[in-house]
Amino acid sequence: MLALFFEGGLTLKEIPVPEPSRGEVLVRILYSAICNTDLEIIKGYMSFTGVPGHEFVGQVITPGHALTGRNVVGEINCSCGHCYMCRIGRPTHCFSRTVVGIAGHQGVFTEYICLPEGNLHIVPDSIPLPLAVFTEPLAAAAEIFEQLHIRPTEKVFILGAGKLGLLAAMVARLNGLDYTSFDTIAEKVDFAVRLGINARHLSSLEPDEKAGVCIDCSGSRDGAGIALSLLYPRGTLVLKTTVAETAKTDLNCIVVNELTVMGSRCGPFRPALNLLERKLADPRPLISGVFPFSDILKAFETAMNPLSLKIIIKH
Amino acid sequence: MLALFFEGGLTLKEIPVPEPSRGEVLVRILYSAICNTDLEIIKGYMSFTGVPGHEFVGQVITPGHALTGRNVVGEINCSCGHCYMCRIGRPTHCFSRTVVGIAGHQGVFTEYICLPEGNLHIVPDSIPLPLAVFTEPLAAAAEIFEQLHIRPTEKVFILGAGKLGLLAAMVARLNGLDYTSFDTIAEKVDFAVRLGINARHLSSLEPDEKAGVCIDCSGSRDGAGIALSLLYPRGTLVLKTTVAETAKTDLNCIVVNELTVMGSRCGPFRPALNLLERKLADPRPLISGVFPFSDILKAFETAMNPLSLKIIIKH
Repeated sequence: MLALFFEGGLTLKEIPVPEPSRGEVLVRILYSAICNTDLEIIKGYMSFTGVPGHEFVGQVITPGHALTGRNVVGEINCSCGHCYMCRIGRPTHCFSRTVVGIAGHQGVFTEYICLPEGNLHIVPDSIPLPLAVFTEPLAAAAEIFEQLHIRPTEKVFILGAGKLGLLAAMVARLNGLDYTSFDTIAEKVDFAVRLGINARHLSSLEPDEKAGVCIDCSGSRDGAGIALSLLYPRGTLVLKTTVAETAKTDLNCIVVNELTVMGSRCGPFRPALNLLERKLADPRPLISGVFPFSDILKAFETAMNPLSLKIIIKH
Repeated sequence: MLALFFEGGLTLKEIPVPEPSRGEVLVRILYSAICNTDLEIIKGYMSFTGVPGHEFVGQVITPGHALTGRNVVGEINCSCGHCYMCRIGRPTHCFSRTVVGIAGHQGVFTEYICLPEGNLHIVPDSIPLPLAVFTEPLAAAAEIFEQLHIRPTEKVFILGAGKLGLLAAMVARLNGLDYTSFDTIAEKVDFAVRLGINARHLSSLEPDEKAGVCIDCSGSRDGAGIALSLLYPRGTLVLKTTVAETAKTDLNCIVVNELTVMGSRCGPFRPALNLLERKLADPRPLISGVFPFSDILKAFETAMNPLSLKIIIKH
């Protein structure tokens, strides 16, 4: 099967169709999408080599399985089920996990993928297939509320009006809280405002404007430091950004202002599917382009434009 | 009155006896103690100039006050009572606060100090005066449990068997949890073990030994990074260390392992006095020396020895 392969650079090449292990099923990829993590991977993040890609919707094709023929999305962490983290109910942090298209597991920028059946969720018929690829990033936004009790009376700043930042804003506004999205690119701010999101240019911040919670979806190495400076004492920074290059962080301000920094990664798929099915989060305006798989290299080029949002691949 | 003065270097000099403002009382210092923060201040931390020192017990001498003649300890944050942080019940984070001997407020390494009456707590007669100076650092240890729900079934690592680390261990063990104190100096480990604290040399850690909570009392710029590497995924680092020099921190590991970093500073005096009064925390073995105020420069020299614990000044 034809696959996008990363090994220092991106190339298209033939690789064998994977064979499901025990407990796994074979899934034919229908749509996939490019995530910022994919863009960081091709800069060297995670020292990954292989087929990248982890956002997808597909059809189970293993014959005779309860899910055969069903359209599914799949959680990306494949866990052992036996280690300490699995036993305490944190399989996404399994010590020997592989992660689809990120660490030790073939990704979805190809024709077929094997996944543990426990990772799959049936996509309700009412969700259009190209929108189902948003389940994974929407779950990452829902994870913020899974980890942290953000009260409806809280004031929240969201740094970054990119793909994840906009989804985080769409989820955050649902609990009635006072939120503002910030970006440093005027076009992104304007776009967010047109979506009905309360967005402003970062430079419009007055020196005394602070929030109780800052969510860093900036994708920038400077995001965490800026977010920390925008918190009230005892405030919480939710850190979503992973970048290939690390920054120097002033830990003294964390102690003196008793700030909390909470890292946040992959999230729960069920709430994300519920939000899509209930049309409470509408990611359609976030689609910047749909490319056939044969044009995936061009799709990556487009995705690298800072003004691009979600680039979808039709397989 | 004679005061220890810091302005690039430490000197003894005459300064005027302070005049209490409205709501303040004059306190005669009976005992004070040297904290690591004092040692950082003389390295440049907080760019402080003036009389340092914030750990003390004293006697109220303002005539005709309800507290006149009583022995008191005093909370070190002096707040405005009007700003946002004061109004939401976080006066220790008051935007215009001064901090005794640390920021904008004369410290206790002298004869008299003025303090807001609301900052004072009467010292129960059963607590010997030289032990009452431990109220402030013991409160800083209690603050960990004020901020974070640490379950009695949690596994906790405490980095640093210095003054604050030993007090944190003394407080942590009270809830029945599984704790271990670590230090890199064998003499400090041996000393902690003699106090009945479960202490080990940091080099004895096996690669797979992890904890759900790490408390960094190392006072070292490398402490935070080491503590992060010792956490299970989803674990919490309680950061107590403030150092004049900042370190580079790998924020990716915080995101990928969904770690929480919680800064922790000054704590509540009432629980600390309760622990001293109930003899549940016994700081007596932590006293490395008692110096008369006239020898305070020598006391500072002794405090700078890494093997010194609490140095107390008798005024």
